[in-house]
Amino acid sequence: MSNHTEDGAMANHPDTPHQHTSKQYDHELLDIRNRVLTLGGLVEEQVESAVASLVEGNVDLAERVIADDYKVNSMEVAIDEECTQIIALRQPAARDLRLVVAVIKTITDLERIGDEAKRMARIAVDLSNYAPRRSQLSDLQHLAKHVRGLLREALDAFARMDVDEALRVVEEDHQVDQEYESITRQQITYMMEDPRAIPIALSIMWSARALERIGDRSCNICEYVIYYAKGKNIRHVSIEQVAADLRRPQ
Amino acid sequence: MSNHTEDGAMANHPDTPHQHTSKQYDHELLDIRNRVLTLGGLVEEQVESAVASLVEGNVDLAERVIADDYKVNSMEVAIDEECTQIIALRQPAARDLRLVVAVIKTITDLERIGDEAKRMARIAVDLSNYAPRRSQLSDLQHLAKHVRGLLREALDAFARMDVDEALRVVEEDHQVDQEYESITRQQITYMMEDPRAIPIALSIMWSARALERIGDRSCNICEYVIYYAKGKNIRHVSIEQVAADLRRPQ
Repeated sequence: MSNHTEDGAMANHPDTPHQHTSKQYDHELLDIRNRVLTLGGLVEEQVESAVASLVEGNVDLAERVIADDYKVNSMEVAIDEECTQIIALRQPAARDLRLVVAVIKTITDLERIGDEAKRMARIAVDLSNYAPRRSQLSDLQHLAKHVRGLLREALDAFARMDVDEALRVVEEDHQVDQEYESITRQQITYMMEDPRAIPIALSIMWSARALERIGDRSCNICEYVIYYAKGKNIRHVSIEQVAADLRRPQ
Repeated sequence: MSNHTEDGAMANHPDTPHQHTSKQYDHELLDIRNRVLTLGGLVEEQVESAVASLVEGNVDLAERVIADDYKVNSMEVAIDEECTQIIALRQPAARDLRLVVAVIKTITDLERIGDEAKRMARIAVDLSNYAPRRSQLSDLQHLAKHVRGLLREALDAFARMDVDEALRVVEEDHQVDQEYESITRQQITYMMEDPRAIPIALSIMWSARALERIGDRSCNICEYVIYYAKGKNIRHVSIEQVAADLRRPQ
């Protein structure tokens, strides 16, 4: 491939048909990776806007998130179809196949993260009729900051197929789970103190739940990175075991 | 393929190597379909046991569901790997490829349904310390009956790749969503009437939520059936549109 000009002049030479196919194939593989990152960026924006709409009581922003969800869905369907085409036409084996499978699974998780953002935006519309405590909103904001960090790192790990970063995200998700539990317990306390606070407390709980699920799905994406890079399926193995296996000299 | 004996004697004839490969390939495709149904059966049992443990306050049963979740996970990982092998070695195109992709997606949803069963079993352990109202448990049982029916029909639709049955499940899921909303509203009423009822009401709500999610995932499986049978991706298209498209003369 090293003798090709950018416009593939060498590649079109009658003696190098295979390399031309290879070059186009390389483009296709890079293209689906790029499209995943574009979808990831859109989903990150949806999550950020949904959280902002919740915390600020911004109904217009919430409705924009809800309206824009179709873009996430369309993009996912399009990339999914491109992946199926690649499998059918290029018949990838080994590493390339693992990439395409990782992409198919990653875009499903990204689309579901988009759904969680839409769910939060709907809660934001309901919650705008109430007056949550400042501490409830700041707790949510804090959890959201952590979760958005996880999602960003998961997408970074995917962009570079970086196993170490992927493992870090999976470990950090434990803290997110604990924060979620803590917020939930706090809301139960508020509910028991004052029944009129129940609708608000439930909305806060469901929002925290949506964020916790976004953290989980970011971990799923990291598991696909590890699956691609190492050919290992870690989904049901403890983190300690995975780290130990991966750091063992080959 | 019509001249083969069962032991493939004809298939081993030097002039028919392709048909032997074909026959084995057919076995592989049937095998992954069968394994999906086996996984589906196990998941159905987990859901049934989890609901029973909740309704009966049976902690032993709940702990068995939690302990058995690893079987669901292992089976999913194994089928996933078999699918990747088939894609790599057989290089399926068109219809066969759609089948393998449908299987990969279906087993992920089945594994997640297994997670929801485990979640309900954990709730059952917590709830055993309390005394829910009989009506709370019977509402849950009613919802569970509907949802288990959806899961059964989704697996049937998958077994026969039956588009009409798949469409029916997607329509029936709307009723499940409504029942879920109704149970949720009822729990909020109980919570506002009596703060001491909050832990119980929350457990009932989360259980209902787990069941609602099982209904959603059963629908996902039906969408894959339609994708396989018709080569159409219906995930973000309204049911009315899909039914209209599919019934239009080709």
